[in-house]
Amino acid sequence: MTTQPILLTAEEINELRKEVGRDTLMGKTIAKNVAQVERFMSLPLEVPGHGDGGSYEHNRHKDNYTYMNIAGRLFLITEEQKYADFVTALLEEYADKYLELGFQVQKNTNPTGRIFHQILNEHGWLLFTSIAYSCVASTMTEAQRQRIIDRIFVPMIEMSIEKYSHRFDHIHNHGVWAVAAVGACAVAIGKPEYLEMAVYGRDPEASSGFLDQVSNLFAPSGYYLEGPYYSRFTIRPLVLLAEVIHRHMPEVDIYNYKNGVVGNTVQALLASAYPNGVFPAMNDASQSMSIADMGVQVAVSIYGAHYSLDDNILGMAKIQDGVWMHPCGLKVSRAYEEASAERTIGMPFWPSVELNEGPDGDKGAQGFVRMQDKNGDVTQLVMNYGQHGMGHGHFDTLGITLFNRGHEVLREYGFARWINVEPKFGGRYLPENPSYARQTIAHNSVTVDETCQNYFDVDRADSVHGLPHFFQVNDDNLKGMSAFANDHHDGFGQQRSVFLLNLDELEAPLLIDLYRVVGEGEHQYDYSHQYDGQIIRTNFEYEAYKELETLGTDHGYQHLWKVAAGEAKETALVSWLQDNSYHTWLGTSSNANGEVIFTRSGANDPSFNLRSEPSFILRSRGESTLFASVVETHGYFNEEFEQSVNARGRVQDIRVLAHNETGSAIEITTQDSIVTMLVSNQADVTESTVNQIIINDKTFNWTGHYSVEVKTQSQETI
Amino acid sequence: MTTQPILLTAEEINELRKEVGRDTLMGKTIAKNVAQVERFMSLPLEVPGHGDGGSYEHNRHKDNYTYMNIAGRLFLITEEQKYADFVTALLEEYADKYLELGFQVQKNTNPTGRIFHQILNEHGWLLFTSIAYSCVASTMTEAQRQRIIDRIFVPMIEMSIEKYSHRFDHIHNHGVWAVAAVGACAVAIGKPEYLEMAVYGRDPEASSGFLDQVSNLFAPSGYYLEGPYYSRFTIRPLVLLAEVIHRHMPEVDIYNYKNGVVGNTVQALLASAYPNGVFPAMNDASQSMSIADMGVQVAVSIYGAHYSLDDNILGMAKIQDGVWMHPCGLKVSRAYEEASAERTIGMPFWPSVELNEGPDGDKGAQGFVRMQDKNGDVTQLVMNYGQHGMGHGHFDTLGITLFNRGHEVLREYGFARWINVEPKFGGRYLPENPSYARQTIAHNSVTVDETCQNYFDVDRADSVHGLPHFFQVNDDNLKGMSAFANDHHDGFGQQRSVFLLNLDELEAPLLIDLYRVVGEGEHQYDYSHQYDGQIIRTNFEYEAYKELETLGTDHGYQHLWKVAAGEAKETALVSWLQDNSYHTWLGTSSNANGEVIFTRSGANDPSFNLRSEPSFILRSRGESTLFASVVETHGYFNEEFEQSVNARGRVQDIRVLAHNETGSAIEITTQDSIVTMLVSNQADVTESTVNQIIINDKTFNWTGHYSVEVKTQSQETI
Repeated sequence: MTTQPILLTAEEINELRKEVGRDTLMGKTIAKNVAQVERFMSLPLEVPGHGDGGSYEHNRHKDNYTYMNIAGRLFLITEEQKYADFVTALLEEYADKYLELGFQVQKNTNPTGRIFHQILNEHGWLLFTSIAYSCVASTMTEAQRQRIIDRIFVPMIEMSIEKYSHRFDHIHNHGVWAVAAVGACAVAIGKPEYLEMAVYGRDPEASSGFLDQVSNLFAPSGYYLEGPYYSRFTIRPLVLLAEVIHRHMPEVDIYNYKNGVVGNTVQALLASAYPNGVFPAMNDASQSMSIADMGVQVAVSIYGAHYSLDDNILGMAKIQDGVWMHPCGLKVSRAYEEASAERTIGMPFWPSVELNEGPDGDKGAQGFVRMQDKNGDVTQLVMNYGQHGMGHGHFDTLGITLFNRGHEVLREYGFARWINVEPKFGGRYLPENPSYARQTIAHNSVTVDETCQNYFDVDRADSVHGLPHFFQVNDDNLKGMSAFANDHHDGFGQQRSVFLLNLDELEAPLLIDLYRVVGEGEHQYDYSHQYDGQIIRTNFEYEAYKELETLGTDHGYQHLWKVAAGEAKETALVSWLQDNSYHTWLGTSSNANGEVIFTRSGANDPSFNLRSEPSFILRSRGESTLFASVVETHGYFNEEFEQSVNARGRVQDIRVLAHNETGSAIEITTQDSIVTMLVSNQADVTESTVNQIIINDKTFNWTGHYSVEVKTQSQETI
Repeated sequence: MTTQPILLTAEEINELRKEVGRDTLMGKTIAKNVAQVERFMSLPLEVPGHGDGGSYEHNRHKDNYTYMNIAGRLFLITEEQKYADFVTALLEEYADKYLELGFQVQKNTNPTGRIFHQILNEHGWLLFTSIAYSCVASTMTEAQRQRIIDRIFVPMIEMSIEKYSHRFDHIHNHGVWAVAAVGACAVAIGKPEYLEMAVYGRDPEASSGFLDQVSNLFAPSGYYLEGPYYSRFTIRPLVLLAEVIHRHMPEVDIYNYKNGVVGNTVQALLASAYPNGVFPAMNDASQSMSIADMGVQVAVSIYGAHYSLDDNILGMAKIQDGVWMHPCGLKVSRAYEEASAERTIGMPFWPSVELNEGPDGDKGAQGFVRMQDKNGDVTQLVMNYGQHGMGHGHFDTLGITLFNRGHEVLREYGFARWINVEPKFGGRYLPENPSYARQTIAHNSVTVDETCQNYFDVDRADSVHGLPHFFQVNDDNLKGMSAFANDHHDGFGQQRSVFLLNLDELEAPLLIDLYRVVGEGEHQYDYSHQYDGQIIRTNFEYEAYKELETLGTDHGYQHLWKVAAGEAKETALVSWLQDNSYHTWLGTSSNANGEVIFTRSGANDPSFNLRSEPSFILRSRGESTLFASVVETHGYFNEEFEQSVNARGRVQDIRVLAHNETGSAIEITTQDSIVTMLVSNQADVTESTVNQIIINDKTFNWTGHYSVEVKTQSQETI
């Protein structure tokens, strides 16, 4: 039995103590933690019984471990006995009750704990409480310690490694929580054999345990296949256990393990965030999870302390306005203090990055393209051409999202779930999550014949992935990426090529989007756009229906009201106002039968589980089809001050010139310019391939993956 | 011809100059104005031609006068010649073009100007440009001045008083702009006869001109019958002309005129604002107009300088974070500086206030009831029991709105208009404004037999008004108001009594709402609630329709989709999540046939002019009917941090015990308490009236307008 803090040394505690009362990131963190813990400590101690997700009991147990975790370290930093007393008193109550509680009744596939409705949360309790215990154990009597160990910690470890052994050390985000909890507790109670088990797995020969998890859950790029929302959730136990291993199994050299996979993983997570710090809601995710999450704060501190401390990391800490209350956080805080004395630390501006997927990085990728406008605003374009995100996967390969001016313009619905809202099925996933949110039509993509990619078959989806074509981001004025999804529908090939183009006459980078579907026989293709805000104008007539029916009967279509529709003619224009900005979409297809359909989600939603959100769809029927569109962001509207400028935008037309198996050719007309874009449709093209397409007597030539020519009114090529 | 600034003396300019570079409200205002004007001056001068509302041309003309107005004063304050040169150069371009422009083509009932699509804006140009001219005229040559006067100012004045004489000095908010523009220009160009005309009207015998406007547009309470949105719009020329009169016709003693009607008017406007400074969208109004509006800033400065400078006024200036760049604003800035050195100036907390309507204050009133919760959050309840707001009037007598925790909970739709958005009919009112936004069903009120109050007849509506019953706000834990609307439907009497009640067990004041309709024969009554957010739970089964039809065919019902409905049984509960708060409504009626209908606006909206917003309606059929309901605000949800507490609330039931011509009796059951509320339904009741109702062997006695008894679980009466 040890009585030492598992994550801090006496010397480190002294250094942290010096920050008390200072106006630094660490000083502010300590002050905030003191205020929060004091407020909680002013309430009577309470260890309630069972409750569902989001219930009072659930929240109370969560608060208990959250504040014990902070109080343990505050005791060390401030040397105030009351914090230790609080942790001890609460742990004693748990020691009284824990074994009496019995396991909760299981309501979904997750096994239940004694305290929580799923062991996932119980592992959170064990991880944070073990750390807290280690901070204050020296103030307890031997009998107190033994009782807490015997009546809480050991039974919890046994629950993990025996009762739920099949869930313990497997390659899954829940598994990371399990091994981190058991590993940290092992050190706290002086049973190193359990740390060993956490690190190497119960069966060291099998693929299991922490080292295999960090090797296999993340691609070489560091991308986590369930997406940033789950990555940030997994990152917290991951880096905490890494720090435990760093301090207690130095022989593992964890931070250099597999070329620094721990740091790589943190960096990949941070590199996915939108310019405002919010994570794109890839796969099952809320629309508001951000780098301000406590797990990401811990990760940024550990990354800064053990890997790199550049201005983007400091910029992240600035958004977080705090650090992890730990020596690692102190390093970041001091670096920030030093850097701020010299220069202004701005918002982070991450470079464009392609994050490969799969254990060997050959299962497609996620592309993140960023470009700044003249005012410094960052436009971010995200395309998914990687793997299916396992159980959380959305069927949206080649789906995109677009962000600028502080909001998502082409939006991701995220999950159908009201997280922790107890009256909404305990905050769990709702039936509308599979029936709507995960379906292809709920995304910014093309839906073939009103079905779903991979026919909503998760096994089928897990067996295929996107095929990267190119990712070119070296030109400041034109960045683009392209990929294929040839295995997601029987008998169809798909390719999407998306670009951000800076034109002098435009306020913001222009999104150019070429989506090509190759199929035999006539099919229906729905090129859908999830937006938010108010329709301002169109360039075509449409009928707003007097009665509403659903757009279809299955694959998410049953949740969409068909609100209005009209014939798109050659090129359709839809312009809308979102917050303070106007966005104008111009779209066309190579078929001449386009129809634009306006929808709103919320049909067949018997419990109001869905949000009511609009979309518009360019529907086209034909064989192989090329969709082409642009989104221009322009103007300014302020209702409060009744200002509106440039409500119409400058792009006037977009046309498909030609497309075949070799390439696609489109032309965009703006007020001042004509942009001709040629894109290769051949998977094996290289930088030096000479491409040529001849269609209807027109010949287009270019070298490499694509070519863009901009002619201004004066016919100069720039 | 004079060459003196009309609103500042040399000595005052010197005092303003001392604030340059200081961190005071005035110092910050000057710095912000310098930055804005510099940015505008860096663009080439431009005097464009005609454009529609919200067009480029429109915005440019507006910017031109806005920045000339500021630049004129900046020239005096900073003594930098460039500001004067900017004003002079721009005025010379207007002098070149103004008379050549010709009048715009008229598109609606508003007469057009040469620069703008309505003379209202042209008067704005004249008012602000006259002031600017007066600041810099001394730097011009005599010939320059004469040319500007001859080719701009005099033709504009003539347009106002001759071509559009019928609109010049009438009792209307547009008339205030007209007389203010002509009055200010008169002083600027040395033609006092026009100031005289502005103040007393073209015909001093008729009810016209500024003095009659301020006497007749506002009630004795200072309330402006078109509502705060129009009041704040009218207040700017009103106080500007008042200041002109104060300085150039001191014999009028304008600030003491009619017991200080100018100040009274400003104060009434400020007293209507929600706790966050946003004005309730009474009548045709946006939902976001606030005290940050420039007109309100000028008004607060003038009120502070000439009337009173208490902490609520300083709190308003704090929200505005600036003052009017004028000696009046300097007084406020200095008072704020002085007060802040002594104490913290918090957010304003205006007392509850009843603002009477009509020239003699006997045409009903608008009630504003405010109560603070334990955390200092202010709940504000607004009820309209006054006049119809003329052309802008909504048919919502007895309608209420409720605000707390930073948002409107029971909401006002506001206008159907995208102000200044040129592609939306030049930013004008849209057809859906009369067909939906102004109809009774679009409000939080009761709609009788699917019609509209006063049958949407403006003349009929102008001839009736609400009848105040009581307004009692002296008890810190119970504040209420009640009124009748007996003339708004043929053969129906209506009474609404609304209270805010503080109960220890509740987080926020509880809204208690009794709405009684008296009619003969069976009728359909729709008790509607405009909310925002996501339905969390109900206590009754409902059917979400597979196809949507409109709720009705006329009076706004044609714009509502009937989304879902269910039998309400005895008491219906609807709980929803808005932003970070839960709100739970429990409602019942004295009839046993209640049905709750969930709707969404946007039907029969062929151009997407409406916002898509939800409401729920308790529909009841019967003769005379009492509706009773509560709204409880509770809990906390944070999606980003995945926290949810108290998602269910504590109120459990509300029942109608009895109601007749004497009084109404209801009972509310919460987790800990039973609240019995008795309200008098007699118009002539006084504080000492002894009331008794006996219904079904139950006897209820109380004295005065109402009685509330709270029994806690231990049966103690508090």
